[in-house]
Amino acid sequence: MEQIARTPSPPYYAVIFTSLRTSVESGYDDMAKRMVELALAQPGFLGMESAREQLGITVSYWRSLEDIKNWKQNAEHRIAQQYGREKWYSQFKTRIALVERDYSF
Amino acid sequence: MEQIARTPSPPYYAVIFTSLRTSVESGYDDMAKRMVELALAQPGFLGMESAREQLGITVSYWRSLEDIKNWKQNAEHRIAQQYGREKWYSQFKTRIALVERDYSF
Repeated sequence: MEQIARTPSPPYYAVIFTSLRTSVESGYDDMAKRMVELALAQPGFLGMESAREQLGITVSYWRSLEDIKNWKQNAEHRIAQQYGREKWYSQFKTRIALVERDYSF
Repeated sequence: MEQIARTPSPPYYAVIFTSLRTSVESGYDDMAKRMVELALAQPGFLGMESAREQLGITVSYWRSLEDIKNWKQNAEHRIAQQYGREKWYSQFKTRIALVERDYSF
């Protein structure tokens, strides 16, 4: 996650997940690693970018809304989401966005 | 920028800016602060979220593509973009995305 994602030409989808953590550390790092592993193996996964200071931002890129829906409903991911709400995050927001254009250098 | 942006109900636009820094520090922090100040004063600006580890991610939210275009062409912002390419960033990518849905807790 230390690189800029090499996404294909638009259009594709971005899931922008921003969060504030609680002070609960237990299990978080392992679950975060596992979720990256799982996402990489999901159909339609195109890349991911992540950074945290106080605020954490993770952007994952996907081929279609259907792929995002399937990832959201993945059984192991659902457990992670539940723990997230109960233990690890004091606040979060998820935004689903259609990437229309990109440019870089 | 330490909070989750309080954006209105979708649709609205997100500009996802991901970057890797060079080792050049000179002028960066001041310019970054000034750009936040300027963005806040732009028509159509809805919020901003930012975090950096190795990778930096800044997501700014906007009412319309027209507002994004005006911000991109702001004279002071253009100078910052030029310095960014020349001095501060070894690599970056900008993605323009239409936020279709969001949810939070």
